[in-house]
Amino acid sequence: MAGEFAFIDWLRQRTPSHRRVQIGPGDDAAALSWLADTSCLVTTDMLLEGSCFTLEGSAIQVPGVAPASARRIGRKAMAVNLSDIAAMAGVPVAAVVSVGLPKQGGQALAQQLYLGLRDIADAFDTAIIGGDTNSWDGPLTISVTVFGEPGPGGVIRRSGARPGDLLFVTGPLGGSILGKHLDFTPRVREALRLASLVTLHAMIDLSDGLAADLAKLCAESRCGAVLWAESIPLSEAARCLGDARSPLDHALGDGEDFELLFAVRAEVGRKLLREQPIPGLNLVAIGECVQQGLWLEQKGQRQPLDPVGWTHALD
Amino acid sequence: MAGEFAFIDWLRQRTPSHRRVQIGPGDDAAALSWLADTSCLVTTDMLLEGSCFTLEGSAIQVPGVAPASARRIGRKAMAVNLSDIAAMAGVPVAAVVSVGLPKQGGQALAQQLYLGLRDIADAFDTAIIGGDTNSWDGPLTISVTVFGEPGPGGVIRRSGARPGDLLFVTGPLGGSILGKHLDFTPRVREALRLASLVTLHAMIDLSDGLAADLAKLCAESRCGAVLWAESIPLSEAARCLGDARSPLDHALGDGEDFELLFAVRAEVGRKLLREQPIPGLNLVAIGECVQQGLWLEQKGQRQPLDPVGWTHALD
Repeated sequence: MAGEFAFIDWLRQRTPSHRRVQIGPGDDAAALSWLADTSCLVTTDMLLEGSCFTLEGSAIQVPGVAPASARRIGRKAMAVNLSDIAAMAGVPVAAVVSVGLPKQGGQALAQQLYLGLRDIADAFDTAIIGGDTNSWDGPLTISVTVFGEPGPGGVIRRSGARPGDLLFVTGPLGGSILGKHLDFTPRVREALRLASLVTLHAMIDLSDGLAADLAKLCAESRCGAVLWAESIPLSEAARCLGDARSPLDHALGDGEDFELLFAVRAEVGRKLLREQPIPGLNLVAIGECVQQGLWLEQKGQRQPLDPVGWTHALD
Repeated sequence: MAGEFAFIDWLRQRTPSHRRVQIGPGDDAAALSWLADTSCLVTTDMLLEGSCFTLEGSAIQVPGVAPASARRIGRKAMAVNLSDIAAMAGVPVAAVVSVGLPKQGGQALAQQLYLGLRDIADAFDTAIIGGDTNSWDGPLTISVTVFGEPGPGGVIRRSGARPGDLLFVTGPLGGSILGKHLDFTPRVREALRLASLVTLHAMIDLSDGLAADLAKLCAESRCGAVLWAESIPLSEAARCLGDARSPLDHALGDGEDFELLFAVRAEVGRKLLREQPIPGLNLVAIGECVQQGLWLEQKGQRQPLDPVGWTHALD
């Protein structure tokens, strides 16, 4: 295989047909069929070597982030986008992928990335319909864009929470750096099931950390929130880290849990707690929306919650 | 402005409303309205510092590529994608943009890139509906994905050329490195006008060089082609380069002309030549499709045409 176009041929041979794909890889643009009067959801995320991940065998290391295979990194690059579609309670349909590959070993790397991308795309019936393959002297760069359509409850935004709503998460939080940040399964199915059962007022996926993402949901909804410290589910990883920060601090501040945080009417929330209608999932109420402010209630005391979390500094 | 989220706020304040945008930047995903039973065209291109461009003031240089401002690079990142939509005779609708920014000076750079992206997106009524902003220690990375819908002639692929078709280009070729590779205007309007006037059998935009892109069009169409050397329009830049390669070699081999190459029935082609129906554009017939092979006819002699051009080497 000699270059970009041979790689595209390799891809095309491996691209299965998909009912929504009219034109797949290999033309100037791809084409999807789209249903009548349906919104088109779009999300995009870029993963950068040395910032978001450490690649096995590469000299570029991120302190504290264990090296991962190209296949796991490819899987993650797709999964973070699927998680964004889940956060809108949408159905993923298709994806395009652009990569900046090292000149040395780029071919093998591209194939492993592709297998990882397909691992999770196939699991969610998401077609990879195109992309752009480049080689350069810089670190590995992957950009994925995913298209989806609304699920049974329509598009769920961050902006619909109201004072009095109960806040839920779909799983235990914190410490994802020990592995979950790579190997999580995006909550696409769970979001669709929830949206088919109840009216979701607002939803976001936890990528930057509970406190930071809650702050975003509240800012969009123009309300505040109280988190109940004792109710926040702590992951095994958050308990295992054993550093200076408590497991609760990890659950509040660590990024990349990729669980969903959502708001529902209190009555609906109590029904969800009673019935736990999502197979394999323990829905946990972790707080409630209030008029304003972000608060953490611990041992009966309410204190301001700092919306700490991961952010890309720009100066 | 302290980081990624402040930058997103800056963007949101500058994002005008657009009839097709239901959800713009600032949620987990954006949402577009889509017309009933209309295909969704998708294309994506990634620009990498030191590979595709030289950024003013940066230590990373591409030999022979003059430094350009962030604004011009932003414009190009959008324009190359619009050119892909033009190549399908489509109408661009919206775009998402992901960037990997240097930590030092990233904010000012991001704003300049955005202004450049908007310069050309606005000119084609294309909304920027979302993206992903990252900072890292690597060179500048920009990935743009554009969505479009079919124009009046439907989706024009690379695969419909037939022996006997005339081959046309929309402008002079070669030497784009002197400036056109940054400042070209994608042939969106010209493609739509053409598609409304005649049946286009096949089309591609010239990004990798005439010979290389002709080879792709022919491979997809399962036919061959003869180029008429004396008919190929040579750009001023191709004549000015004054290096070891002839202007014709530049026109055949240089990438990033971003003109359109298209095939039409011979009779239709003769009508186009007679009527020149596109204002401001001189349509030039540069050859014809044949059963097989790629050929260059020069002074009455037919010789094999080497599909040289730009490719990303992968090893």
